[in-house]
Amino acid sequence: MLGRVADCQLSGDRVFVYYRIAGTEAEACEKARIIAVEQTVEFPADLIPPGLIHEKVIGRIESIQKTDRGGYLAGISYSVEITAFELTQLLNVVFGNSSIKPGIRVEGIEMPESLLGRFEGPRFGRSGLRNLLGIPGRPLLCTALKPMGLSSGALADLAYTFAANGIDIIKDDHGLTDQCFAGYRERVESCSEAVLRANKETGGKAIYMPNITGPVDDILPRARLARNAGAGGLLIAPGLVGFDAVRRIAGDDSIGMPVFSHPALQGSFVVSPDSGISHGVLFGLLPRLCGADATIYPNVGGRFSFSADECREITAHTGTAFGHIRSIFPCPGGGMDIGRVPEMLDIYGRDVIFLIGGGLFSRGPDLAENCRFFHRLAETYPV
Amino acid sequence: MLGRVADCQLSGDRVFVYYRIAGTEAEACEKARIIAVEQTVEFPADLIPPGLIHEKVIGRIESIQKTDRGGYLAGISYSVEITAFELTQLLNVVFGNSSIKPGIRVEGIEMPESLLGRFEGPRFGRSGLRNLLGIPGRPLLCTALKPMGLSSGALADLAYTFAANGIDIIKDDHGLTDQCFAGYRERVESCSEAVLRANKETGGKAIYMPNITGPVDDILPRARLARNAGAGGLLIAPGLVGFDAVRRIAGDDSIGMPVFSHPALQGSFVVSPDSGISHGVLFGLLPRLCGADATIYPNVGGRFSFSADECREITAHTGTAFGHIRSIFPCPGGGMDIGRVPEMLDIYGRDVIFLIGGGLFSRGPDLAENCRFFHRLAETYPV
Repeated sequence: MLGRVADCQLSGDRVFVYYRIAGTEAEACEKARIIAVEQTVEFPADLIPPGLIHEKVIGRIESIQKTDRGGYLAGISYSVEITAFELTQLLNVVFGNSSIKPGIRVEGIEMPESLLGRFEGPRFGRSGLRNLLGIPGRPLLCTALKPMGLSSGALADLAYTFAANGIDIIKDDHGLTDQCFAGYRERVESCSEAVLRANKETGGKAIYMPNITGPVDDILPRARLARNAGAGGLLIAPGLVGFDAVRRIAGDDSIGMPVFSHPALQGSFVVSPDSGISHGVLFGLLPRLCGADATIYPNVGGRFSFSADECREITAHTGTAFGHIRSIFPCPGGGMDIGRVPEMLDIYGRDVIFLIGGGLFSRGPDLAENCRFFHRLAETYPV
Repeated sequence: MLGRVADCQLSGDRVFVYYRIAGTEAEACEKARIIAVEQTVEFPADLIPPGLIHEKVIGRIESIQKTDRGGYLAGISYSVEITAFELTQLLNVVFGNSSIKPGIRVEGIEMPESLLGRFEGPRFGRSGLRNLLGIPGRPLLCTALKPMGLSSGALADLAYTFAANGIDIIKDDHGLTDQCFAGYRERVESCSEAVLRANKETGGKAIYMPNITGPVDDILPRARLARNAGAGGLLIAPGLVGFDAVRRIAGDDSIGMPVFSHPALQGSFVVSPDSGISHGVLFGLLPRLCGADATIYPNVGGRFSFSADECREITAHTGTAFGHIRSIFPCPGGGMDIGRVPEMLDIYGRDVIFLIGGGLFSRGPDLAENCRFFHRLAETYPV
């Protein structure tokens, strides 16, 4: 019933995906076989004539081994051509339909150069961001403008205080978009001006980073407005706009600013230990592949539930060898307080961005002094 | 330390979100209080001066009640203005950061007219799609072009056979994008022509529906190419491109074709019973809000794991009263075979689209006869 298969030449290059599969060895082998079909032809394999589709389109089980975290790790490889060299289709091949089946977790992705080379990756990365901010060695310091409900002027006043007192990166809270409280244009112009004014006074290089997460047709215009207003970076949440929108913005030469990814709406991929996508792939590999220069995620011990090992796994993916793709900063945050900085230095080392939001206010009544205290702590890191 | 709050006038309209929270009543109350802050100001509430932010920005707990599915259902309302009337920010308010916390599941969303009115919703919906296809009463029939690896000509031959033998909607498999096997332009032109030719011969109104899921800058051009080639609808996966991209395409008057949403990469939201987003909200309410005319999801008893109740919940959300937003078709699929059509008629009634892919091939060697058998089954539905 099926007609001609295509006669295109395939390179032989393959994408490897590692799935942790719950169950016994026999169950894991059977599930791996199903994944290899589900993620590719989605068709009864016994109805497909011998030839190219069996040999080159259906996924190939490369390895199955027991893991010490329960279940089995199956390595399945796919012809690189089935990704169409598109990020969206790569994500679909990795986990599209299989995401709907419980007991399957994506633990790793390895790409051939023919695919990785299609991605520009981060424009700045760790060293580029250090150069931009003029900070060669110490951890970087980041905070968020909030709470929502403040006027643009009040947010700009906060931005000035942060920038004038040693905070390197002042980002919008990720819930600030274009609300009536502080509309996008007014807020971005006010806060950009405030940070530039503080820099002029201190000789510093702090940057303001507005949140451009928004309707599809507004993302690029908001990024351009930020650029023209004198902002120094962009915040975007791939869980809300799609990973490919991050790639699009990060790769735009007319924008050319650092991009930080935010984890909003991505939690469901990691809350179940046996399903979804691993912390390292979701918050490390994927944002880096898309060109984010830093990845924001909840730190261990804050008000979220990530473990120290999960945070280390993310950090490892931000810095490990990844073809031509630059290493990026882990940016752990979420319910941190200043007192935990020494412990975090121990986990992350110096190549980290400390994100402290509300905690910067709760240390004491003098916000400027709290910022300076935070800055001094980061300066004391022994390089 | 905090400056002026904004002086914008708020309408008093509120968005209600229902969260099922695991744990005891005391734990659920505490978690609800945390959600109301996390999803809005993300700031220590005791550091915020009395006034607008407490009264109008922080979420308000409206109800907490025990559920028979375990845990407690908390109703939390938010000022509509904090959504900025943007779909992306609405999703962020509903579940952005709280998605990262286990034991919280979104079970329902209710919007005031001031927000719902910003959404056009489906262009066709159930009655519009029935009119377009000329099918007033019976269930609609859908199949997918696959397996990947066939040439455009072979896929077009399949499309012709399907359209000529009683299949109403012939969609791309969601893994077909722009691979070398059957590139987007060639495939869409060939398959559109094949279905139009079949229609000319039969007097029918079958439609071909290519998959436009792809890089952000290619989605709209691919939709336009489909329109110009004579395709009759579009397939798109919000889990890969973001829900707002679906809204953008469905609302584009220059395209004006039915849009079907596909569940790829969305499974992680539903695989854990106590976390994520309910089946009804994820596969019913949200695609409908974005303007999809039908929502594809795995049917009970197929190769995925949805229960009959979960499928009924999705179906309910496709048709229940929802302001001016048209009702849409549930399109259950995934590993179905023809023999299950009578059982599905029992669950879904006539307002359903049966999606049968590989199963259409496995019934017997004559694909045309399999299609006609499938068509006769749908025709026998007692209206």
